Amino acid sequence: MSPRRTGRRPGNPDTRESILAAARAAFAERGFDATPIRAVAAAAAVDPALVHHYFGTKEDLFRAAMAIPIDPAELVPRVLAGGRDEVGERMVRTFLGVWDSPAGTAAVALLRSAVSNQWTARLLREFLTTQILRRVVDRLDLDPAEVPLRGALVATQIAGLAMMRYVIRLEPVASATPDTLAATIGPTVQRYLTGPLDGG
Amino acid sequence: MSPRRTGRRPGNPDTRESILAAARAAFAERGFDATPIRAVAAAAAVDPALVHHYFGTKEDLFRAAMAIPIDPAELVPRVLAGGRDEVGERMVRTFLGVWDSPAGTAAVALLRSAVSNQWTARLLREFLTTQILRRVVDRLDLDPAEVPLRGALVATQIAGLAMMRYVIRLEPVASATPDTLAATIGPTVQRYLTGPLDGG
Repeated sequence: MSPRRTGRRPGNPDTRESILAAARAAFAERGFDATPIRAVAAAAAVDPALVHHYFGTKEDLFRAAMAIPIDPAELVPRVLAGGRDEVGERMVRTFLGVWDSPAGTAAVALLRSAVSNQWTARLLREFLTTQILRRVVDRLDLDPAEVPLRGALVATQIAGLAMMRYVIRLEPVASATPDTLAATIGPTVQRYLTGPLDGG
Repeated sequence: MSPRRTGRRPGNPDTRESILAAARAAFAERGFDATPIRAVAAAAAVDPALVHHYFGTKEDLFRAAMAIPIDPAELVPRVLAGGRDEVGERMVRTFLGVWDSPAGTAAVALLRSAVSNQWTARLLREFLTTQILRRVVDRLDLDPAEVPLRGALVATQIAGLAMMRYVIRLEPVASATPDTLAATIGPTVQRYLTGPLDGG
């Protein structure tokens, strides 16, 4: 993820990159929740205030470290805005909106990277869990004991959709319209989030 | 996928490997249906009878070329044996049975490889379509116009399950029992195969 450099340069670009590298290592190793900004700062040998100055909140730092082109704090409320019974369809549409956009290239690259690289896989897992799924399930008034399974089931369906549409390019999913995919896959996501978990 | 060799050896191992390499190239480029055994034989500069002698049917050659440890011709009827209404659960259980077995390592390696390599992706797509999905949907008495979409939707859910359970290792899906996953994901596969496509 770090840009290729032909020589060492002093100053900000190296500092920024050191912070991002320290953040990637810490988030992958300890997890997002257990990593304070000051631990990232210490690993990068900078002042915590500089980390905040460059990257904002810990969430922002995480997104920057993973080069994630979307902001779940902004996107997730939009998914949940339309009412509890349409959250499945809306989530499928929102993901397709991101992936089908120019930003989607980075998202698919991240998926590829997570498959071949254990560290990226850990980061992606942390990102899914703490930045997306937690935000979604926190607002749906679900049984807390069921939340982890519901979230992970949603992840299986959404990741599989990304995989078949953008990586394996299996037709007709690869070129289906967002309407078709929202209508067919939306109910699955809806059931995983709010329906009976055994399908009954 | 070819074994590493420290030097050239004459005779059968090279011939077998040439046939497998020719088969991988032909199946990826033209697709399984449009590739006759004799085209593979011609590309490998051997007699078609030798291809049959080494590898059996075209299906067997495809599995050997992809190092696929299972035989869909044997597995798929087992999935379909228990009646139309349990096919979703049974498919999830069957996949988990293969993946959780020693043979599963090869299956997960194939998934990883398909993500990073366009040729393997094409081969996997051909394999899913012609060897697994076609066999499943042919026997379920479905509207032929809906079959490709139904099959591809199943593939999104099954591939996403593999991805989250074995590659990203997202909990609790990573260590859930087959019973839990069959009960929760089985109804999704069932709907994609035989239910109303819009979930209604």
